[in-house]
Amino acid sequence: MPKNIMVYSTKSCPYCKMLKSFLNEIGMNFQDYDIGKDARRAKEMVEKSGQMSVPVTDVDGRIIIGFDRRVFMEELGLAPKGGQRKYDLVIVGAGPAGITASIYASRKKMDFVLITKDIGGQTKWSAGIENYTGYQFITGPELTEKFRKHLEQFGMEIREGEGVVSVERKKGDFLVRTEKGEFSAKTVILASGRIPRKLGVEGEEKFLGRGVTYCATCDGPLFAGKEVAVVGGGNSALDATLQLIKIAKKIHVIDVAPKFRADRVMVEKAQASGKAVFHHSAEITRIFGNDFVRSVTVSQEGKKYDVAVEGVFIEIGSLPASEIAQEAKKNEYGEIEVNCKCETNVPGLFAAGDLTDVPAKQIIVAAGEGAKAAMSAFEYLSKSK
Amino acid sequence: MPKNIMVYSTKSCPYCKMLKSFLNEIGMNFQDYDIGKDARRAKEMVEKSGQMSVPVTDVDGRIIIGFDRRVFMEELGLAPKGGQRKYDLVIVGAGPAGITASIYASRKKMDFVLITKDIGGQTKWSAGIENYTGYQFITGPELTEKFRKHLEQFGMEIREGEGVVSVERKKGDFLVRTEKGEFSAKTVILASGRIPRKLGVEGEEKFLGRGVTYCATCDGPLFAGKEVAVVGGGNSALDATLQLIKIAKKIHVIDVAPKFRADRVMVEKAQASGKAVFHHSAEITRIFGNDFVRSVTVSQEGKKYDVAVEGVFIEIGSLPASEIAQEAKKNEYGEIEVNCKCETNVPGLFAAGDLTDVPAKQIIVAAGEGAKAAMSAFEYLSKSK
Repeated sequence: MPKNIMVYSTKSCPYCKMLKSFLNEIGMNFQDYDIGKDARRAKEMVEKSGQMSVPVTDVDGRIIIGFDRRVFMEELGLAPKGGQRKYDLVIVGAGPAGITASIYASRKKMDFVLITKDIGGQTKWSAGIENYTGYQFITGPELTEKFRKHLEQFGMEIREGEGVVSVERKKGDFLVRTEKGEFSAKTVILASGRIPRKLGVEGEEKFLGRGVTYCATCDGPLFAGKEVAVVGGGNSALDATLQLIKIAKKIHVIDVAPKFRADRVMVEKAQASGKAVFHHSAEITRIFGNDFVRSVTVSQEGKKYDVAVEGVFIEIGSLPASEIAQEAKKNEYGEIEVNCKCETNVPGLFAAGDLTDVPAKQIIVAAGEGAKAAMSAFEYLSKSK
Repeated sequence: MPKNIMVYSTKSCPYCKMLKSFLNEIGMNFQDYDIGKDARRAKEMVEKSGQMSVPVTDVDGRIIIGFDRRVFMEELGLAPKGGQRKYDLVIVGAGPAGITASIYASRKKMDFVLITKDIGGQTKWSAGIENYTGYQFITGPELTEKFRKHLEQFGMEIREGEGVVSVERKKGDFLVRTEKGEFSAKTVILASGRIPRKLGVEGEEKFLGRGVTYCATCDGPLFAGKEVAVVGGGNSALDATLQLIKIAKKIHVIDVAPKFRADRVMVEKAQASGKAVFHHSAEITRIFGNDFVRSVTVSQEGKKYDVAVEGVFIEIGSLPASEIAQEAKKNEYGEIEVNCKCETNVPGLFAAGDLTDVPAKQIIVAAGEGAKAAMSAFEYLSKSK
């Protein structure tokens, strides 16, 4: 058993909350440092980990970056729970789609397991949600917490912190391989969502966690009073900008398009702040620095110039996490093609949420699609017996 | 200004709540009588109105049956807000689909008007909801209230209490006719949901509000200690039966099928009560009475018999409110056919929620479809300019 656990976190970071509630759950004592408030501890964290990204945990001198339930269970000497058999249904992913599918599957008393890296998916990262019908305003972490509570009331089997590696057909059933084992099921709902798109420029990999980040909600507080860049022009880029306006000194919003695609209300708010500088028809070509980011090179309509920034928030969209299902038919963007009943081209294989070709990538839409997928899986099983 | 307003209501009736919150909103004093508790006032209401249906309002001796915001505004001498011009978008109906479409349209700053008979649609009538993701348990009226608050925060133009009569194409635009006027728009989202199916027998029209009702939640309390009939064998019929078991003396459940289609747990509860009498393979052929319902004639496997009841609760499903759009392509059930983007066969005409052919008739699904429809209308307008 470890003797001394120190958690470096920010108030706004969902993974930090998950980590801390996990430690409480298993009865581990720990020291919690809010580095958004305590500059000395912030410096200490960066020195220990070489990272500008929370959470960082010090377990008797061993440094763990981020939060992965399984990694922590291993580090703390706790065995993961086991057990395998044939299910009616495996649900992959627990964003709004996977959670709603699980709620519907539970109410239909289906025999299923929910396998997921985390709870909440992209919902977690949103600073403020005003368009999930029924909640006038709610933060991503708060809505995630409500989703989790709703999920847990049904007492279903959840394999959290477990990534799915592949989903294949085997003799009429499905074989779902995870990082830790294998599951057999008659039907599968893919709801593994999307992963952030990378910029693909020099310095991006090198400075990841050292100024380069894909999560303004988590890492924003580390850049108090600093100049930063936000890359992108959609709702998520403007959402990141609005979060950073409260924290950073100046925000350079750098977008390839001549005009933002974000909702006008967000653009107007950013403009009104006086802190945002817009670079349209512009792209970052390199990220520079020593130990941490120092500047970016911007190319704008044939001209090149450097902008001194200490943070680069990349918000240029995401890619569907669809590669685990080789047999599923995909569109040109790699999104799984579904019909209005969430059926894929493979009988018994359903997909819901942001990894599908349904055009609206929205929490409320993903939730609705999850309900449909569960009802379709139920109908499929009723007919196949 | 009226001097004396008396409202006869029941605790459970959503229209009663809407009426009372409307009166409070416009600053009108009124006397509220809960006729579920006060038998003398219940009798008084029936005498004044000739109705066994709440709410009934007495405004200085003038009797108003039901709640229609526009009727009340006229009766109370308040002018309805006017104004007509060409909109980008008209949204018809404010159930979960229309409300979510309106929220999305507001955030996109679209120039639109929401025209609707009421707020909440079928959601209002649900006694308990456990599968709207994010709310572990919530009643229909409570969720409707949350939806309404969410809607109102955007300050959009809402024409409540106004039914749409027809939606037609006119020179590339749409002409939306209501009971009160006409609206011109570039796009329309149909989200008018479903209406209760009628039995189509003698006496049904005549005794509507005088024993015949389509809402157990609203009118149930008027039948305390009486014998009643529930028509139907699905979940909504059994839901009505379970509500009435707490109130009525005896409930005759009359269903055309030889076996109930409702969830077994509901049927078992009704059986256990000892108050429900099941008539399978049976149908009502006539409803009799004088001023109010006295009995029904039942036809069962070639035999006919009369059952003395004072209330007839009709719960035989619903029909899509799709006849307002003549040009929209429909399936065999009268549901408007949509693709995954909520587009109909008519360019610029979108549909969302329970009046479409999307198979899952669920609140969370309708909400998701509403979001899609608004985004599709926005995209259509962006491209058509």
